[in-house]
Amino acid sequence: MGPTVAFIGLGIMGGRMVKNVLKAGYAVRVQNRTMAKAEAVRALGATVAVTPRKAAVGADIVVTMVADPPALAAVLEGPEGVFAGCRPGTLVVDMSTVDPATSQAMAAKAKAAGLRYLEAPVTGGVGAAEQGTLTIMAGGSAEDFAAAKPLLETMGKKVLHIGPMGYGSVLKLCANLVGASIITSMNEALVLAVKSGLDLGVVTEVLTERSPLIGRTAPKVLSGDFSANFPLKHSHKDVQLALSTARAVGAPMFALGAVAQIQGAALAKGFGELDQTVTARVLEEIAGVQARKAPGA
Amino acid sequence: MGPTVAFIGLGIMGGRMVKNVLKAGYAVRVQNRTMAKAEAVRALGATVAVTPRKAAVGADIVVTMVADPPALAAVLEGPEGVFAGCRPGTLVVDMSTVDPATSQAMAAKAKAAGLRYLEAPVTGGVGAAEQGTLTIMAGGSAEDFAAAKPLLETMGKKVLHIGPMGYGSVLKLCANLVGASIITSMNEALVLAVKSGLDLGVVTEVLTERSPLIGRTAPKVLSGDFSANFPLKHSHKDVQLALSTARAVGAPMFALGAVAQIQGAALAKGFGELDQTVTARVLEEIAGVQARKAPGA
Amino acid sequence: MGPTVAFIGLGIMGGRMVKNVLKAGYAVRVQNRTMAKAEAVRALGATVAVTPRKAAVGADIVVTMVADPPALAAVLEGPEGVFAGCRPGTLVVDMSTVDPATSQAMAAKAKAAGLRYLEAPVTGGVGAAEQGTLTIMAGGSAEDFAAAKPLLETMGKKVLHIGPMGYGSVLKLCANLVGASIITSMNEALVLAVKSGLDLGVVTEVLTERSPLIGRTAPKVLSGDFSANFPLKHSHKDVQLALSTARAVGAPMFALGAVAQIQGAALAKGFGELDQTVTARVLEEIAGVQARKAPGA
Amino acid sequence: MGPTVAFIGLGIMGGRMVKNVLKAGYAVRVQNRTMAKAEAVRALGATVAVTPRKAAVGADIVVTMVADPPALAAVLEGPEGVFAGCRPGTLVVDMSTVDPATSQAMAAKAKAAGLRYLEAPVTGGVGAAEQGTLTIMAGGSAEDFAAAKPLLETMGKKVLHIGPMGYGSVLKLCANLVGASIITSMNEALVLAVKSGLDLGVVTEVLTERSPLIGRTAPKVLSGDFSANFPLKHSHKDVQLALSTARAVGAPMFALGAVAQIQGAALAKGFGELDQTVTARVLEEIAGVQARKAPGA
Repeated sequence: MGPTVAFIGLGIMGGRMVKNVLKAGYAVRVQNRTMAKAEAVRALGATVAVTPRKAAVGADIVVTMVADPPALAAVLEGPEGVFAGCRPGTLVVDMSTVDPATSQAMAAKAKAAGLRYLEAPVTGGVGAAEQGTLTIMAGGSAEDFAAAKPLLETMGKKVLHIGPMGYGSVLKLCANLVGASIITSMNEALVLAVKSGLDLGVVTEVLTERSPLIGRTAPKVLSGDFSANFPLKHSHKDVQLALSTARAVGAPMFALGAVAQIQGAALAKGFGELDQTVTARVLEEIAGVQARKAPGA
Repeated sequence: MGPTVAFIGLGIMGGRMVKNVLKAGYAVRVQNRTMAKAEAVRALGATVAVTPRKAAVGADIVVTMVADPPALAAVLEGPEGVFAGCRPGTLVVDMSTVDPATSQAMAAKAKAAGLRYLEAPVTGGVGAAEQGTLTIMAGGSAEDFAAAKPLLETMGKKVLHIGPMGYGSVLKLCANLVGASIITSMNEALVLAVKSGLDLGVVTEVLTERSPLIGRTAPKVLSGDFSANFPLKHSHKDVQLALSTARAVGAPMFALGAVAQIQGAALAKGFGELDQTVTARVLEEIAGVQARKAPGA
Repeated sequence: MGPTVAFIGLGIMGGRMVKNVLKAGYAVRVQNRTMAKAEAVRALGATVAVTPRKAAVGADIVVTMVADPPALAAVLEGPEGVFAGCRPGTLVVDMSTVDPATSQAMAAKAKAAGLRYLEAPVTGGVGAAEQGTLTIMAGGSAEDFAAAKPLLETMGKKVLHIGPMGYGSVLKLCANLVGASIITSMNEALVLAVKSGLDLGVVTEVLTERSPLIGRTAPKVLSGDFSANFPLKHSHKDVQLALSTARAVGAPMFALGAVAQIQGAALAKGFGELDQTVTARVLEEIAGVQARKAPGA
Repeated sequence: MGPTVAFIGLGIMGGRMVKNVLKAGYAVRVQNRTMAKAEAVRALGATVAVTPRKAAVGADIVVTMVADPPALAAVLEGPEGVFAGCRPGTLVVDMSTVDPATSQAMAAKAKAAGLRYLEAPVTGGVGAAEQGTLTIMAGGSAEDFAAAKPLLETMGKKVLHIGPMGYGSVLKLCANLVGASIITSMNEALVLAVKSGLDLGVVTEVLTERSPLIGRTAPKVLSGDFSANFPLKHSHKDVQLALSTARAVGAPMFALGAVAQIQGAALAKGFGELDQTVTARVLEEIAGVQARKAPGA
C-alpha cells in the first residue's frame, strides 16, 4: 500500500487534483474550510478531517492547495494547522500560487518544526487539473523533489524541478503575469474590433493563433458568461504578487502595472468572483459597446 | 496562361511571398525601391520594372507590400505610381499593414481613377511567408475578394474575407497589438526570472505554453541576437496605428499605451532596425541584468 | 497710428486676447470661422473680414489663434488663406498650440511665400487671456521676436523668446503635458478620497498646496459643472502632440501615456466638448461614486 | 509647566519638528534608532531615552515620526515599545505617513492597552518642518484632536481635523500621490525639453507656474545633486500605500500605476536613498541625455 496523503484545500483546482491522487491508489485524507466540498470527495474514497492538523496526523505527505499567502498561513500555522499535526520529517508540498517570499518563510517555519517543505505551484487551469495534465514547477531540495515526484505525477504531465525554494513560485508568477497580460490585451483588441464593426468569431479565430489561452477564454467574453474558470480575484492576487516580487528584486513592470489597474477597476465594480476575462466589461463600459456574439451567430 | 501580376515591395515579407506567386505559375513583374532585391527575384523568373507605374502597366492584378502608410502612398500615387500605370478596372491588392483610414482613403483614390481595390494584410511572419502559409485578412467587396482569392491562396493557407474596406486592417492591427503585448509581457517576465536567478531555458519552455509566439521569439532574447525577423520600427508603427484607430473609434487601450512607451524607449536607444524583441534591452538596462543564456547552457 | 493687426480665430482664448490688442490702440481686423463671434468684436472697434486672406490684406502683422494643426493649415494655406493675402515681408504670428513640426513646416511655407513667421503659444488659461497676463513662449528669429514683442505685450505679462522655430511649441507642450498630468492625478486622488469618505472641500484645500491649477480646476469636479474652460478635446490634442513630439525626439513618456488613455476613455464617452477635468467621470464610473460636494456643504 | 512629550523618530522630518516642540517650552524626551541623532537634540534641552518604552514612561503625550508601517509597529509594539511604557489614558500621536489600515490597526491596539491614539501626518517637506509651518491632517476623535492641537500647533501652521481614524492618512496619501505624479511629469517634460534643445532654466520657470513643487524640486534635477530632501524610498513607499489603499476601497489609479513603475525602475538602479527627483535619471538614460544645466548657465 502506498503512502498516506493529506490534501488540504478542495477549491476549483484542488477538488479536481485530489481525484487524480485517489485514482492513483493513494490513501487520502482531505480537509476543506467548507465541509460540503470535502463530503463530495468522501464519496470517492477519501477520509474527511475537520482541521488541517487532524488531516496531517499520521500522513506521510501533506499537500496544500489554497487561495493566497494568508490562506496558506492559516492552514499551516496555529494550533489546528498542518505543522502542529505532522510527525517529524513529514514532507509538506504546497501547490498554491504564492510569492517566493511566502514559500521561503513557510519553508523556514517547517524546518524549525522539524519538517520538510516543497513548493510546487501548477499551470494549466481547470481542464488540466481534471485530466491530470498540469505543469508543476517545484522549488526546494533535490531530495524533497524526488520524494514528491511520484505523487506529483498523478496530477501533472510535466513535473519540473526549477531550483531552490522560491524559484517555483517565481516561475508560476511569470506564467500568470503573462497570462493576465494576454487576456487584457485580448480584451482591448476585442473592444477595438467590435467598435469597428467586425464579427468577433473571426477575430477570435485569428487572435487564437497568438495564444491558445485566447482560444480558451475569448468564448467567455463573446458569450457574456463570466462564471469563473479562474476568478478575477485570484488572477489579480497573482498579478499583485508578481508586482511585489518584481519590486523586491528590481525588475520593471511597466505593462503589468497597467494590467493591474484594469483588473483593479473590474474588482472595484464587484467582479472579483467572476472569471478573470471580466475585465472586458470595464473596457466595454468605457467604449459603450458589448463584445458579445449574438446567440446562434 | 494565368494573369500577369505586378508585385511592388520586396522586403523581408514581400521578397518571400513573391516566390510563392512565381512557383504557382503567374507571370510576375516586380519593383522595389532598392533594385538589388528585385534582381534576386529576376533569377526566379520575374520581370523587373524600375518604377511602380511601369510594373503596373499591362498587369491584371497589382500587389503592394510595403512598410507603412507613407510608403504605400508613395508607391500608389504620383506620376510614377501604380495608379498612373493601371488600365481601367485593374485590381490593386494592398497586403501591407496600414490602418483602416489609410485603406479607405487609398480605395477612394483607386475608385476615382477607375480602379478596384482590396486590402489584404497578413499574419504569420517570415516563416509563413516563406512557406506560403500566411493568414490573409481581406477587406473590400465580395467580388474583389473573389477575384483576388486564387492569387492570395498561393501565399496563404487561411484566406479570409473579413468585411468591407478597413475591416481587414482593423483585424491585422488587433493581431499585431496582441503580438506586441505578448512580447512585452514575455520580456517583463524574463527579466523578473533572471533577476530571481532562474534558468531561462525552463522559463521559456513554460511560457511557450502561453503563446507559440513566445516559443518563436524568446530564443532571440536568450541568444542576444536581435537581427530582425520583425523590426521594432514596424511593430511600433503597427502599435501606433492601433492606438490612433482606437482613439478614432473610442476604444480604450490602457495596457497597449504602456507597451507603446516601452517600445518608444527602445526606439530612443536606436534599436528600430533590430527585432521587436529588443525591448528586452530597455528592461534589462533598468534591472542591471541580461536575460541571456550562456552558450551551451 | 500703430500698425494694423489681423487677428484670426476668436474662440475661448482668441476672443479674449483680441480685446487687449484693441484696448492697446491697434487697428484690428478679425476673422473667425463662425461669424457671430466676429460680430461681437466689431462692437469693440474691430473690422470684420470674411476670410483669412481678406483679413490679411494690408495688415502689418497677422495673428492666428486656432484649435490645432489642421485648423492652422486651413487658415494659413489655400486661396483664401492668410499667406495668399499678405504683402511680402509681413510677419505672421501663430499663437495656437501646435507641435514643433507644424511650426517648422508652416514657417518654411511662409518663407517660401516671402513672409516672416513666429510661433508664440501661450499659457495661463481663460483668466489670463482676459486680463492680458498670459505667459507667451516665442520660437523664431530674434528680429521677428523683437518685431512682435510690443504687440505680444498687450496680451501677456511674461513674453519670452525661447529659441529657434519649434522651441516655443515644445515648451508649450511641456506646460500642457504637466497640466494634464496634474489634473489626472488630482482626479485619481479625489476619487480615492471620496471612496474613503473624506470631505472634498478640505481635500481640495490641501491638494491646492501642490498646484494652483488644482485650486482652479477642482471646483469644476466638486460642482459637477463641466462646462469648458479648457475643453478636453483640446487638452487631449496637446497630449497627443506631446506624445508624438516625444516619439520623434526619443523621450520616454510612461506616465503621460497613461494620462492619454484616461483622456481617451473620456472622449470615448462623448465628453470632448466638456472641460478637461471631466476625466473625473471616467474614474467615478469605475469606482461607483461621484466626487461631488453637496450644495451648501 | 507644560506636559511632558515623548518624541520617537528623529529623521529628516522628526529631527526638525522636535526643535519647534522644544522651542515652545515642552519638556521633551527623545528616542531614535541611531543614537547619534538623539544626542544632537539633547544639546537643545531634550532628555534622551534608549528605547521607545523608556521614552514613553511618564510622558503625557507621545509623538511618533518614523519611516513606514513596519517601523511604526516596531516602535509602538513589543516589550520595549511605546505601548508598554505608557500609563493608562496617555495620548499617542503618530505623525508618520502610513496607510489608513495601519492607523486603524494601531489605534485598536492602543485602545486595547487602555491608551488614546491620534494619527496626524504632515505635508510641507523639510522647509516647513524647520519653520514649524507644516500642514497637519489629523484623524481620530474630536477630543483626542483637541488634546493634541496645542502641541501640533508648535509644528504646523494649518492643523486640521479631517475625520475619524484613517481619514488623515488617506488625505496625506492623496497629497503625496499628487506630489509624486507632479515630479514624474516634470521629469518627463524636462527630458522632452532637453532632447529638443531647450534651455532648462526657462523651462523650469514656466513649469513652476503649474506647481510650486516644481520650483522647489527642478533645481535638484538641473544641478544633478540628488541628495535627499525627500528620499525616493519614502516617496515610493507612499505611492505603494496609496495604491494598496485605492485597491482596498476600489479607486482606479491608472496614472499612478505608471508613476509607481518609473519609481520602481529608479529603485532597481539603487537610487532609493537619493531624492525622489532621481527618477529623472531613469528617463535620461533611456533618452541618452542629461537634463542638467551647465554651471553658470
